[in-house]
Amino acid sequence: MSIDGLFTRTEEFPNSSAQARLNSLVGLDEIVDRLVVDAIALLDSSAMASWSTAVHGEIIPAVSAVLDRTPMFVFAGDVGVGKTEVAEVIGQAIATRAHVDVSLYPLSLSARGRGAVGEMTTLLTRAFERISSDFACARKQDGTASSLGVLLIDEADALAQSRELAQMHHEDRAGVNALLRGIDGLRVDRIPVLTILCTNRLDALDPAVQRRAAAIQVFNRPSHEQRAALLLRLLAGTEISISDVESLATATAENGVWPYAYTYSDLRQRLVPEIVLSAYRRGVAVNSSIAKEVISRTPPTRPFGSAS
Amino acid sequence: MSIDGLFTRTEEFPNSSAQARLNSLVGLDEIVDRLVVDAIALLDSSAMASWSTAVHGEIIPAVSAVLDRTPMFVFAGDVGVGKTEVAEVIGQAIATRAHVDVSLYPLSLSARGRGAVGEMTTLLTRAFERISSDFACARKQDGTASSLGVLLIDEADALAQSRELAQMHHEDRAGVNALLRGIDGLRVDRIPVLTILCTNRLDALDPAVQRRAAAIQVFNRPSHEQRAALLLRLLAGTEISISDVESLATATAENGVWPYAYTYSDLRQRLVPEIVLSAYRRGVAVNSSIAKEVISRTPPTRPFGSAS
Amino acid sequence: MSIDGLFTRTEEFPNSSAQARLNSLVGLDEIVDRLVVDAIALLDSSAMASWSTAVHGEIIPAVSAVLDRTPMFVFAGDVGVGKTEVAEVIGQAIATRAHVDVSLYPLSLSARGRGAVGEMTTLLTRAFERISSDFACARKQDGTASSLGVLLIDEADALAQSRELAQMHHEDRAGVNALLRGIDGLRVDRIPVLTILCTNRLDALDPAVQRRAAAIQVFNRPSHEQRAALLLRLLAGTEISISDVESLATATAENGVWPYAYTYSDLRQRLVPEIVLSAYRRGVAVNSSIAKEVISRTPPTRPFGSAS
Amino acid sequence: MSIDGLFTRTEEFPNSSAQARLNSLVGLDEIVDRLVVDAIALLDSSAMASWSTAVHGEIIPAVSAVLDRTPMFVFAGDVGVGKTEVAEVIGQAIATRAHVDVSLYPLSLSARGRGAVGEMTTLLTRAFERISSDFACARKQDGTASSLGVLLIDEADALAQSRELAQMHHEDRAGVNALLRGIDGLRVDRIPVLTILCTNRLDALDPAVQRRAAAIQVFNRPSHEQRAALLLRLLAGTEISISDVESLATATAENGVWPYAYTYSDLRQRLVPEIVLSAYRRGVAVNSSIAKEVISRTPPTRPFGSAS
Amino acid sequence: MSIDGLFTRTEEFPNSSAQARLNSLVGLDEIVDRLVVDAIALLDSSAMASWSTAVHGEIIPAVSAVLDRTPMFVFAGDVGVGKTEVAEVIGQAIATRAHVDVSLYPLSLSARGRGAVGEMTTLLTRAFERISSDFACARKQDGTASSLGVLLIDEADALAQSRELAQMHHEDRAGVNALLRGIDGLRVDRIPVLTILCTNRLDALDPAVQRRAAAIQVFNRPSHEQRAALLLRLLAGTEISISDVESLATATAENGVWPYAYTYSDLRQRLVPEIVLSAYRRGVAVNSSIAKEVISRTPPTRPFGSAS
Amino acid sequence: MSIDGLFTRTEEFPNSSAQARLNSLVGLDEIVDRLVVDAIALLDSSAMASWSTAVHGEIIPAVSAVLDRTPMFVFAGDVGVGKTEVAEVIGQAIATRAHVDVSLYPLSLSARGRGAVGEMTTLLTRAFERISSDFACARKQDGTASSLGVLLIDEADALAQSRELAQMHHEDRAGVNALLRGIDGLRVDRIPVLTILCTNRLDALDPAVQRRAAAIQVFNRPSHEQRAALLLRLLAGTEISISDVESLATATAENGVWPYAYTYSDLRQRLVPEIVLSAYRRGVAVNSSIAKEVISRTPPTRPFGSAS
Repeated sequence: MSIDGLFTRTEEFPNSSAQARLNSLVGLDEIVDRLVVDAIALLDSSAMASWSTAVHGEIIPAVSAVLDRTPMFVFAGDVGVGKTEVAEVIGQAIATRAHVDVSLYPLSLSARGRGAVGEMTTLLTRAFERISSDFACARKQDGTASSLGVLLIDEADALAQSRELAQMHHEDRAGVNALLRGIDGLRVDRIPVLTILCTNRLDALDPAVQRRAAAIQVFNRPSHEQRAALLLRLLAGTEISISDVESLATATAENGVWPYAYTYSDLRQRLVPEIVLSAYRRGVAVNSSIAKEVISRTPPTRPFGSAS
Repeated sequence: MSIDGLFTRTEEFPNSSAQARLNSLVGLDEIVDRLVVDAIALLDSSAMASWSTAVHGEIIPAVSAVLDRTPMFVFAGDVGVGKTEVAEVIGQAIATRAHVDVSLYPLSLSARGRGAVGEMTTLLTRAFERISSDFACARKQDGTASSLGVLLIDEADALAQSRELAQMHHEDRAGVNALLRGIDGLRVDRIPVLTILCTNRLDALDPAVQRRAAAIQVFNRPSHEQRAALLLRLLAGTEISISDVESLATATAENGVWPYAYTYSDLRQRLVPEIVLSAYRRGVAVNSSIAKEVISRTPPTRPFGSAS
Repeated sequence: MSIDGLFTRTEEFPNSSAQARLNSLVGLDEIVDRLVVDAIALLDSSAMASWSTAVHGEIIPAVSAVLDRTPMFVFAGDVGVGKTEVAEVIGQAIATRAHVDVSLYPLSLSARGRGAVGEMTTLLTRAFERISSDFACARKQDGTASSLGVLLIDEADALAQSRELAQMHHEDRAGVNALLRGIDGLRVDRIPVLTILCTNRLDALDPAVQRRAAAIQVFNRPSHEQRAALLLRLLAGTEISISDVESLATATAENGVWPYAYTYSDLRQRLVPEIVLSAYRRGVAVNSSIAKEVISRTPPTRPFGSAS
Repeated sequence: MSIDGLFTRTEEFPNSSAQARLNSLVGLDEIVDRLVVDAIALLDSSAMASWSTAVHGEIIPAVSAVLDRTPMFVFAGDVGVGKTEVAEVIGQAIATRAHVDVSLYPLSLSARGRGAVGEMTTLLTRAFERISSDFACARKQDGTASSLGVLLIDEADALAQSRELAQMHHEDRAGVNALLRGIDGLRVDRIPVLTILCTNRLDALDPAVQRRAAAIQVFNRPSHEQRAALLLRLLAGTEISISDVESLATATAENGVWPYAYTYSDLRQRLVPEIVLSAYRRGVAVNSSIAKEVISRTPPTRPFGSAS
Repeated sequence: MSIDGLFTRTEEFPNSSAQARLNSLVGLDEIVDRLVVDAIALLDSSAMASWSTAVHGEIIPAVSAVLDRTPMFVFAGDVGVGKTEVAEVIGQAIATRAHVDVSLYPLSLSARGRGAVGEMTTLLTRAFERISSDFACARKQDGTASSLGVLLIDEADALAQSRELAQMHHEDRAGVNALLRGIDGLRVDRIPVLTILCTNRLDALDPAVQRRAAAIQVFNRPSHEQRAALLLRLLAGTEISISDVESLATATAENGVWPYAYTYSDLRQRLVPEIVLSAYRRGVAVNSSIAKEVISRTPPTRPFGSAS
Repeated sequence: MSIDGLFTRTEEFPNSSAQARLNSLVGLDEIVDRLVVDAIALLDSSAMASWSTAVHGEIIPAVSAVLDRTPMFVFAGDVGVGKTEVAEVIGQAIATRAHVDVSLYPLSLSARGRGAVGEMTTLLTRAFERISSDFACARKQDGTASSLGVLLIDEADALAQSRELAQMHHEDRAGVNALLRGIDGLRVDRIPVLTILCTNRLDALDPAVQRRAAAIQVFNRPSHEQRAALLLRLLAGTEISISDVESLATATAENGVWPYAYTYSDLRQRLVPEIVLSAYRRGVAVNSSIAKEVISRTPPTRPFGSAS
């Protein structure tokens, strides 16, 4: 479903497909758990009030400090480390944990405009107006929310480039302003919408945007254990053994040839498919020697911004 | 209330919510007091005339030197040190001190335009026209003012960038001109409106703008005492003791790891909420060890412009 | 045949002319074979399912990892090394191998727009809409495809320049977005269309584009054997002997004078024609001494980007 | 009075308010006297002819050399040294010395346009047309002028930036052309109008503009005597004695802390008002110790262009 | 004759004026001969087929390699070395050698547009459409051409600037695309039109344009013999002897004072005219001492791009 | 008289005012003489034919070399050295020498446009069309001209900036093209119009423009003798003696303080007027001591482009 071209494929949670994707997130459980708790606390004050009363005997002033924060997360990290995947399925986790309906509104690339002056600003403004309108009545009399929205802005640095850059284009500066206006509006009107900005250039985000973030979650390339867990799942059913997987995890670490490990997406979208295709081309079963041969000719993606 | 989209949420002082915010300004009392006295002296000559007559036996010529100044303050300093907060509530302090109605007109981000050439200039001009018109009759026959306006221009450097920059965009230079025209107009027509420009890049403000300022108030990151006072207030009701607060104030000072202290906003909007959320996630009461653990993983915001 | 000016000379495979061109690709057979297998696997899951069941006794999860990839190839390499030629005739190889109709849609240079803001984006979007519409019904109930499309985007770096460049033009950034939108749309809707991007500046391709590529095939300048094989074919019928060809292959290698070998296109489009013209001008037969003399005054093309 | 938005507050001389302002110019008398004589000589040839006949027995050829000059002054110097003040009241001095009516036409900031291409040029052209038309009949049959105009262009460097700058914006270059056209027109048609350009960046003025100037008057920051004279006048009626003033003049000179003295405007608009406000805030009389305390925390304005 | 403003003064060959200009090309005969043969071979396959059959007993495959080339020459070299002159009269040589009508279409400077975005692209496209249409029927059934066109694009670097330049203007990149589209269209449709690009900045030509060139002819400044031959012809009828000419040729070589020789155009358009004028001014005959005196004060043109 | 706003104050020669200005050119006689002879030779072939027949017994081929040149002069040199003055009165010298009517067409600054894209090109084109039309019938049947035009383009570098500059603005490049088109058209159609370009930045003129110039005349600052001659004339009738003038000429040479001498315009427009004004202000006669005092405080204009 697309709404006015502003958003791409909005999605309602809970749904089973999202649950499958959530389950397949390997090694990110801890991060997801913490973000879900924070998101619910930011959007719906009741659980937090209960906790404060339970442990402190009253609603302590610091609770307001939490509720005054902007319900916005920044997900930062390299290409392919799972930022967008987590952002797309966190709604499922929130929905099941908080027992509310959650809707995902991914900002369409179209909403970034086609380069005409003023267009990006207009589209951004309309996107915020639309989501504000959709959730304007979602908060009940008692302050709890009957449904929640998640506004996902991928590659947010393009919209919220730091105004510290002297040579910034006027149009881009206007875009930052529109974005600030939008998220401030959601906070002030207490619309139960969580905004998530994904970027692989945290440094390029405007300080005024960063400052507003309730959480800045940096995603890293997977560790040895995370790579092993993912490969084990992806290569199930093949002739590759558990000890093979261990050595594949080692082979995809940073080393003398490339100074950075494989990303989640390198493993899932480039390495494993190429292993399968290699076996398929030869008409043989997927096995460890094919996997190693493929690794030797499939380098990991270089970190964004590390190019000459 | 929004007026024509030029201003966001104008506010009438005195009001109780503003008084609460004014009360919660920790460690800024002295600055606020001085600014309030200056603002009243700039906008309403009667108090000053009385004083001069009392202490000098006449209205000394130097009083005119004060009244000839442009009723404009520049608030400079880092992100999160309280500039905007003071600017937003100083009207409350003026209203109660001078016993007049004060209205806050925060210039809308919209009024900065959406990037179209000439748009920013047009909007700025209309904003000044609107406020001039609203207070045109506010000065009584005897020269005292029946009501005062506060025009707040946040992130003013974007509007009043120094024209010393060789590569300045034509549109931006036009913006500086419009701003100068606006504040000069208020002064010449003796409209009782105080203009406050907030910026975190004082050096980037055009010299012609700086020169006009009746006061340039630099805000700093809070001192040990100010951090302690703020934390004490924010963490009231928790298991954190007064001596705990002392050590938290120490832990949030500049040190070997980060060469700058926490800002007000770091403490209020990032540290304390994260402390609360950490306790909440575990279902325990807020205590000192949680607070310390959170500090260790929550660095202060880097000063604006210090990025590589 | 031209469709709406968006594409130049679409071509239906199989056809005999394309077969002739495919046959004349010297030394690129291995690359072509592998790419054909991959293309078919990406566009039509049936063959792969059969293989998995045969060798693993089931459809292993990793097969979905292949099918989830974006059916897009990036062909990178210097000017004149055969990228575009392979891209233009690979449809013939796919058609004969998979026994389906394949259509080539080369994106017209016109579709890059004439410089007007927003035009490139609009044209790109329309091109993707057109090809999506043409192949919307090409996938049968059982998931296999009755016909396939090949969308060829030559000199793709102009459309998909890395957004890492700080000084990127707004219009160009919009172009990258439109391209990403287009290829993501083809993948999500499972339209059986293979997109091929050719570029001689792989580093200049946006990381988000590179990451999506199912295969990045780097084409190199031909080896000694490849140069010899090509020259043998091109100089057939002349007085040049097989041992002459060997020494010509040596003479066209990198050496002290020029640090890079002749490209395929140097040999085919510049060297051999000039040899023929030299003989023709003198009215004599093509022989080895003319060939050597021509080589001595016809340097290879410098690699793209190596200019001062 | 405003004319068509091209000029701000035109003013007729002589008038008593201007005389007061002229009287209050401390330490600039000599400069003003010389400029007045030159202005009258440039605009009205009769006095000069009389002089030549008296001292040389004839009108010497060199008199034409004077009359052929462009009646344009350039006032250069730092922010706050009195350039604009002199330019605004010199009409009063001319009017009383030459016994003619003089009108001041300050070019409006609006006339610099709002950034639209071509707008500045159009407005400048109209401004010159307007003033030419107003004074077209001001010269009598005998060549003497019945009334004079003063066209004041403040911050002229913005309009007449040196075309030596390679990266000059087309629109700005067009502005220089329009300005040259305007002042050349006044000279050729012998319109009795004196043009005064004020700038704090003399080096940035186009050489073709500088070359035309009949006088380039550089204004400096005030000397010890000038500072003392000004402070004496401004602090009259307070408890500050003449010897106090001497030491205040010393305290506002360049020194080890700041390598430049206070400007006129620093003294009048920043220092004295702050001294008054300090006394007022405490409810005490203005005295020497308050003045010294204020100086210690009120640095002089840095020279334009000296910022890092 | 001008066609639609796209071309300036198209010219039909053979004609006697062109023959005279062709005859007056001194020292370029060898280059012209070779280019004429190549041009005919590229545009009309019959002569080449006859030759191949005669010397090889068959039409060897390499002949197709010639015919597949783009009928485009690039003439490179310094200002004034005869590039444009050769390009303008080569049609005469082709017409007399091949016994066909040849038409010259010099691309008008107007066709480069007046700076409006998209204009250059539109005009270029229309120019190619026009010439394609004029020669669409020029190729006979047997593949030979009944008439030929020469499309001359002078100062081609302005149209085909290398896209390697990072900061290239969008409009200029669009121009390169339009040019590539045009010449590719002529080749594919086998329109008998020879395109000649002249440039004095070969390095600035886009690689994709250079690669297509059937010949890149670099023109050099004339040698001693060429200078002598030209001067002998130009100074005929004067008192300058053959041995004088020899020493003049020496005097116009590169030397310690200027590190480059005189160009053809320096000799023809600057030196000889100035010699004549010097004699004429004095009313004497042209002789050797005048010539030497003029050389001593008339330096050769500096090579393009060698300025500081 | 102004024609369509394209030209300012066209002037018909001979006229007495121009003769006076011509007479007053001190020290430039030799340059003017040579330029006049060249101009007549370029515009009217009859005199030259007579000469050639007289001294060589025939019209030697080299005469055509002269007549083939572009009738265009470039006057280069510093601000104030007399370039424009010579260009404005050379028509008078030509008219009296050749006994024809000469008209001066100074290109209006307006014709350079007001910054709108394409405007400069359009205006330039119209200017050339207008002058071509005015003199289209000026050449008689025998090739001699009944009247001549002089097209004066002052500050030509702004129109004909070298395209060697990588960062050249599109609009400016279009201007160079229009200028080349115009002067080539005058030459080809043999319109009897002499184009004179004045510039103080010869290096900034496009090579293609420089190459076309029949003469590039560099004007220098005046020598000691020239300064003395000018001062003698300007200071006639004063108390300054001939030996005084000698020492004033010495005082205005380059020296240790300023490394460049006074320009003609420095002497005429700045020094002498200021000497007169100084005497006038004091009511005394002009004498040597006043002159020296004025020199000591009136530095010469710095050469264009020598600023930091």
